[in-house]
Amino acid sequence: MKYGARNQLIGKVTSVKKGDIMCQIKLDIPAASVMNSVMTVESLDDLGIKEGDSVKVVVKAINVLLVRE
Amino acid sequence: MKYGARNQLIGKVTSVKKGDIMCQIKLDIPAASVMNSVMTVESLDDLGIKEGDSVKVVVKAINVLLVRE
Amino acid sequence: MKYGARNQLIGKVTSVKKGDIMCQIKLDIPAASVMNSVMTVESLDDLGIKEGDSVKVVVKAINVLLVRE
Amino acid sequence: MKYGARNQLIGKVTSVKKGDIMCQIKLDIPAASVMNSVMTVESLDDLGIKEGDSVKVVVKAINVLLVRE
Amino acid sequence: MKYGARNQLIGKVTSVKKGDIMCQIKLDIPAASVMNSVMTVESLDDLGIKEGDSVKVVVKAINVLLVRE
Amino acid sequence: MKYGARNQLIGKVTSVKKGDIMCQIKLDIPAASVMNSVMTVESLDDLGIKEGDSVKVVVKAINVLLVRE
Repeated sequence: MKYGARNQLIGKVTSVKKGDIMCQIKLDIPAASVMNSVMTVESLDDLGIKEGDSVKVVVKAINVLLVRE
Repeated sequence: MKYGARNQLIGKVTSVKKGDIMCQIKLDIPAASVMNSVMTVESLDDLGIKEGDSVKVVVKAINVLLVRE
Repeated sequence: MKYGARNQLIGKVTSVKKGDIMCQIKLDIPAASVMNSVMTVESLDDLGIKEGDSVKVVVKAINVLLVRE
Repeated sequence: MKYGARNQLIGKVTSVKKGDIMCQIKLDIPAASVMNSVMTVESLDDLGIKEGDSVKVVVKAINVLLVRE
Repeated sequence: MKYGARNQLIGKVTSVKKGDIMCQIKLDIPAASVMNSVMTVESLDDLGIKEGDSVKVVVKAINVLLVRE
Repeated sequence: MKYGARNQLIGKVTSVKKGDIMCQIKLDIPAASVMNSVMTVESLDDLGIKEGDSVKVVVKAINVLLVRE
C-alpha cells in the first residue's frame, strides 16, 4: 500500500461526531497529540471506523501551512 | 494567536529544498515523526525559516484523509 | 507573525452561521468585496471571533483557481 | 456562468513566472491588494493568460483560513 | 471559458442533499462512474442546479491523490 | 482498503514528468477521459509508479468544484 502523499501517520480514533452532511473524527497520534479529520457522513459509513480503531492519517504536503510565530 | 484550523503541531525544520517555483520543507514533530510542507519559494523567503527553527504546523481538518488498511 | 502562504488579507467579520459540524463566516475585505470561510464549529469556538472583529484571511496560492471567461 | 464557490473576485494578471512543472501568477485585485495563484504550466498554457489580462479568481470557502492575531 | 485546472469532466447531477451549512451533490460522469462534490448550501443556491442538469466538474491536479494498492 | 473520500476511480498511468520539487502524472480513466495529479517527486519515488501501471485515484468531495456554463 503506497500513497502519493508525504505525510502519513497512524492514528487511533477517539471520537466520531456525525452532522447532517459532514462529520468530524478525532484521533490520537503518537506523542499525545490530537488530530481531526472532516469528511462526509457517507465516507464515514463506508470507512466503517469507530472509537478505538487504528487508521492511516494521510495529508498531502501542499496542504500543510507553516507559521512562524 | 488563534487559527481556524483543528490541527496544530509544533515542528522543527530539518531541511529546506528550493526548486524553481515550489520548495519542500521537512520537519520533525514530537514522537520522532516527520512531516513535509510544500509552498512557493516566495513564501519560504517571507517566512525566513531555516534548519533548526521551530514553526507552527497548521492543517485544516478537511484536508486530512483517513484510510483503513 | 509570518505565514507560509502567498495570499493574506485583512477582513472584518460580518456574520457567523453555525451548523452542526461546520460553520460559515462572512467577511468584508477592502474595496467592498466579500469573502467566505468554512471551518468546524470547534475551530470557530477556539478562534472566538464575532461580528465586527478583524481577522487575517490566509489562502495558499495552490488553492486559488483562475478562470478566463 | 456560475461557480460552486463562495469567493469570486476579478483580478488583473501582473506577472507570470514559469517553472518546470508549476508556475506562479500574480494578480492585482481591487483596493491595491495582490493575490497569487499556483497551477501547472500546462494549465497556464491552456488558459492562455498574459500580463494585463483580466481573470476570475475563484476560491472555495473551505480553503480560506482565518487567523486572529 | 478556460479553467486553470487540469481535470475537467462533464457530469450529470443525480442527487442534491442539503444540510445546514454544507450540501452534497452526486453526479454521473461518463463510463458509469459517480462523483461527489461538497459545497456550501449558499453556493448551491447560486449555482441553481438540480437533478438532471449538466455541470462542469473541475478539480485541480494538486488535489488528486494517487494510491498504489 | 477503505478511503475517507467520496471519489475513487481506477486510472492507468500514461506519463510521468518530473520537475525539481513537483512532478505531474497523467492517467487514463474509463471512457477515454484524462486526469492529472501533481505531487512531490519524493512521493512519486515512494509510489514507484511508471507508465502502464494501474493506480487508485482518490479525491475528497470538498475539492470538487462544480461550474454551470
